[in-house]
Amino acid sequence: MKRIVLIGSGNLAEALARAVAKSGCEAVQLFARNPERGPVVARLAGCGWTSDPADLCRTADLYLIAVSDRAVAEVASTLPIPERAAVAHTAGSVPLEAIPERFTRRAVFYPMQTFTKGREVDFSEIPVFLETSDPGFRPELEAFARSLSRQVIWADSAQRAKVHLAAVFACNFANHMYALGEEVVRSAGLDFEVLKPLIAETAAKACDSRSPRDVQTGPAVRNDTDTQQRHLALLDGNPALQEIYSQISKEIWKTSKNR
Amino acid sequence: MKRIVLIGSGNLAEALARAVAKSGCEAVQLFARNPERGPVVARLAGCGWTSDPADLCRTADLYLIAVSDRAVAEVASTLPIPERAAVAHTAGSVPLEAIPERFTRRAVFYPMQTFTKGREVDFSEIPVFLETSDPGFRPELEAFARSLSRQVIWADSAQRAKVHLAAVFACNFANHMYALGEEVVRSAGLDFEVLKPLIAETAAKACDSRSPRDVQTGPAVRNDTDTQQRHLALLDGNPALQEIYSQISKEIWKTSKNR
Repeated sequence: MKRIVLIGSGNLAEALARAVAKSGCEAVQLFARNPERGPVVARLAGCGWTSDPADLCRTADLYLIAVSDRAVAEVASTLPIPERAAVAHTAGSVPLEAIPERFTRRAVFYPMQTFTKGREVDFSEIPVFLETSDPGFRPELEAFARSLSRQVIWADSAQRAKVHLAAVFACNFANHMYALGEEVVRSAGLDFEVLKPLIAETAAKACDSRSPRDVQTGPAVRNDTDTQQRHLALLDGNPALQEIYSQISKEIWKTSKNR
Repeated sequence: MKRIVLIGSGNLAEALARAVAKSGCEAVQLFARNPERGPVVARLAGCGWTSDPADLCRTADLYLIAVSDRAVAEVASTLPIPERAAVAHTAGSVPLEAIPERFTRRAVFYPMQTFTKGREVDFSEIPVFLETSDPGFRPELEAFARSLSRQVIWADSAQRAKVHLAAVFACNFANHMYALGEEVVRSAGLDFEVLKPLIAETAAKACDSRSPRDVQTGPAVRNDTDTQQRHLALLDGNPALQEIYSQISKEIWKTSKNR
């Protein structure tokens, strides 16, 4: 599976463009509506760009759809390509069935990572979750995935939905905890900057652990209710944050190994 | 301020022992009750250990109390040292006043970081928050702090309480989000291992940003309520997690720049 058409021009399409360019595969075309991003991402992939379905290459080995979760089904259903084409989407929370049944070689290729425009990540470290309804397509799909990443995992749509939910906790919600930390340091006249060494070490420590539960610290895991009461008093006037503080503290203690 | 007595043998005492040993200062003694940890931490500091108050060195330039938040006041009040001694505690959430007034040169030296036994951190990167009730003691305390860290910040007890609360969000609660992520991937038959690249990149991205709000991703910040409903359905049977999921998602959207 050497000749790839990339579809989309967002953060994930950009990361895939860089990754495919470095792999043994060839991006033959980037198909995207956005006339600003399309050419930029195509250049990263080392291929041409088109926004016109009539120009879409019809002989690629794989059509890789990297558009927003909500657009997957619509984009997949309007691709003017032959039914024997292999078509994969890249959305964690979207079932395989979002790709029309008329494509017999339909698949999911979900790289679990947070992607940002202009920010390069090492794709080879990213776990890629694969699914296909066509057993005969498995070896080819897996070979393609392995040319991009060292961590390739087969998972059905139900498993992948859970993986995507786990990513919301470990990434989106963790990032929001940083944001709440920023809000609190700002209320003390300080900058987000002061939290950075702590954030870096917290992540590094968890990644060096067998389980984040083993390295949990803080007043909640010590059941230090005096400190928790003082913290809630500091959040006075912000009932939403008080609620989040109490809920998470309760959860930490409930699942603590020290209990 | 060259001759330091370290008090305590926990995670923070261990980090301070390593840091003082590397600085231009000298640890002259480690005072700690724990007969197993005491000698270990003293060795890291390059000094002798005692658990006997009668043996406590009485001529040090600074007594640095690194015991648990709850023990600070008791330990400080029972130190058999002269009233002219400089005494500092290292607890983020404990006011300066936990050190008895009879010590005129009392202070706080709070390094904001998560410390783990046996895990070395680069102390020079850690923000250290200083406070003293004796203006004459400020230059000496600051010089000591600067010999250990490049980030030295003066903050009163009220500010420091907020800094400590911010650390709970950015460290303790972020780590719990990793733990919840682990719980969810395990329910899909997968290991915590698969989340590590995501956790590392999420922290790195926030640390490279001006504000974590600028790099927030996920269904909540997109107000993608379909995905949120599917996630809540996956958490069926776990009302505590559903509540946390809803609360945090609501907060993310409420504070979103895309709104």
